[in-house]
Amino acid sequence: MLQLHIGNKNYSSWSMRPWVLLRQSGIAFEEVMHRFDSFAPGSGFKHSLEAISPTGKVPVLVDDGLAIWDTLAIAEYLAEQYPQHALWPQDRAARAQARSVCAEMHSGFTALRSACPMNIEASLPDTGALHWRDNAALRADVARLEQMWTALLQQHGGPLLFGAFSIADAFFAPVCMRLHSYQLPVSPKAAAYVERVRALPSVQQWMDEALAEQDFLDFEEPYRLQR
Amino acid sequence: MLQLHIGNKNYSSWSMRPWVLLRQSGIAFEEVMHRFDSFAPGSGFKHSLEAISPTGKVPVLVDDGLAIWDTLAIAEYLAEQYPQHALWPQDRAARAQARSVCAEMHSGFTALRSACPMNIEASLPDTGALHWRDNAALRADVARLEQMWTALLQQHGGPLLFGAFSIADAFFAPVCMRLHSYQLPVSPKAAAYVERVRALPSVQQWMDEALAEQDFLDFEEPYRLQR
Ligand SMILES: N[C@@H](CCC(=O)N[C@@H](CS)C(=O)NCC(=O)O)C(=O)O
Ligand SMILES: N[C@@H](CCC(=O)N[C@@H](CS)C(=O)NCC(=O)O)C(=O)O
Repeated sequence: MLQLHIGNKNYSSWSMRPWVLLRQSGIAFEEVMHRFDSFAPGSGFKHSLEAISPTGKVPVLVDDGLAIWDTLAIAEYLAEQYPQHALWPQDRAARAQARSVCAEMHSGFTALRSACPMNIEASLPDTGALHWRDNAALRADVARLEQMWTALLQQHGGPLLFGAFSIADAFFAPVCMRLHSYQLPVSPKAAAYVERVRALPSVQQWMDEALAEQDFLDFEEPYRLQR
Repeated sequence: MLQLHIGNKNYSSWSMRPWVLLRQSGIAFEEVMHRFDSFAPGSGFKHSLEAISPTGKVPVLVDDGLAIWDTLAIAEYLAEQYPQHALWPQDRAARAQARSVCAEMHSGFTALRSACPMNIEASLPDTGALHWRDNAALRADVARLEQMWTALLQQHGGPLLFGAFSIADAFFAPVCMRLHSYQLPVSPKAAAYVERVRALPSVQQWMDEALAEQDFLDFEEPYRLQR
């Protein structure tokens, strides 16, 4: 059976993507959690990943001894292995577009990612408002998301970015978490997309399990002293 | 015919990847250069890309009106459209591994990328030595490259990462340029791989054309006042 190695559900935005992709598509897998005690060499986290991945990061998908690390490679691997699930859009042009936005997400949106780390159980509207006021790169990242989502929803007719659920929605799910936690102002169309992603059963389950963790990690909490 | 929109060859590390991939594979394409006058809104660069890509960045591949932006999406698109060129390794496990290292490159190695921006015609050994002394994250990035390359070359027998030329070599070509320009110390095996990449005809041609540009751009030159 496929094994997906992940980190804390409350914090690990990268882990969330392949987990949501697998769960939402109904592909069976075993989850292996590696607690984020610390990312320092010699930490429990690094130690437990040592034998699994050369990067010492999560997520890692293991298929019968074959390790695939890095989210986008995992997504492509799954798309290839499970063609019946149409994880990428089936139309050639839509698929090229979906890959473009996922690769853009994979290497970009750094201002949003660094100012607003994923923290599902936190509600940080004041932090969000200050960043929104002071951080032009963050505002540009959000403007690009709005433009992208609005165009795709219009072109493909919704409810998700390429109509039905695809890898692209899994890729933007952590961003939807951030927009919600930090209450960043977005257009009604973008806000409605965020709510549709949050309502996906797989995303609901991930969020429930994140809330149940109750594991406050200082190094993942730039904005709080406690829960 | 395929159109590849790129930036200055001396500086544009992202543009180099799909260009080398296409040229080395012998896939015909038309090159469209957008000079890096500036990345500010309203610059000539941004203006000329406006109608082509929603991100205002290069590279962009245009296939008969369909725009694919972002390097990794371009690579996947080409692999899909030109199966006869085997741009990814043909073995399933090797392909998963190749995708893992490319996705890792796509979103990682940030210390190396920010400290040592690509600058093909520059020779900056002293800058490299200072960064090497002071920047532990840079040393960690280079250590990971060495470990990755050594393991892949041994596993697949060389001369390139997966034996024959693949997308992976195109993805690491800009890193090879950086290691050379900044003369970062690497193991003999890694250094030999860098030399083999630099000797690829497509890489040679890119380098020759970069040298011929003679276009000194201040904002791409953190370490020099002039050529
Ligand atoms: N590009 C990687 C990034 C993975 C990543 O950075 N994961 C974080 C957790 S969300 C991690 O494992 N960090 C450990 C570290 O940085 O040492 C991917 O797409 O999988
Ligand atoms: N993730 C993108 C990055 C592309 C990118 O950042 N390109 C640079 C040139 S090397 C650019 O166009 N920069 C313009 C800007 O940042 O405004 C890709 O893989 O294509």
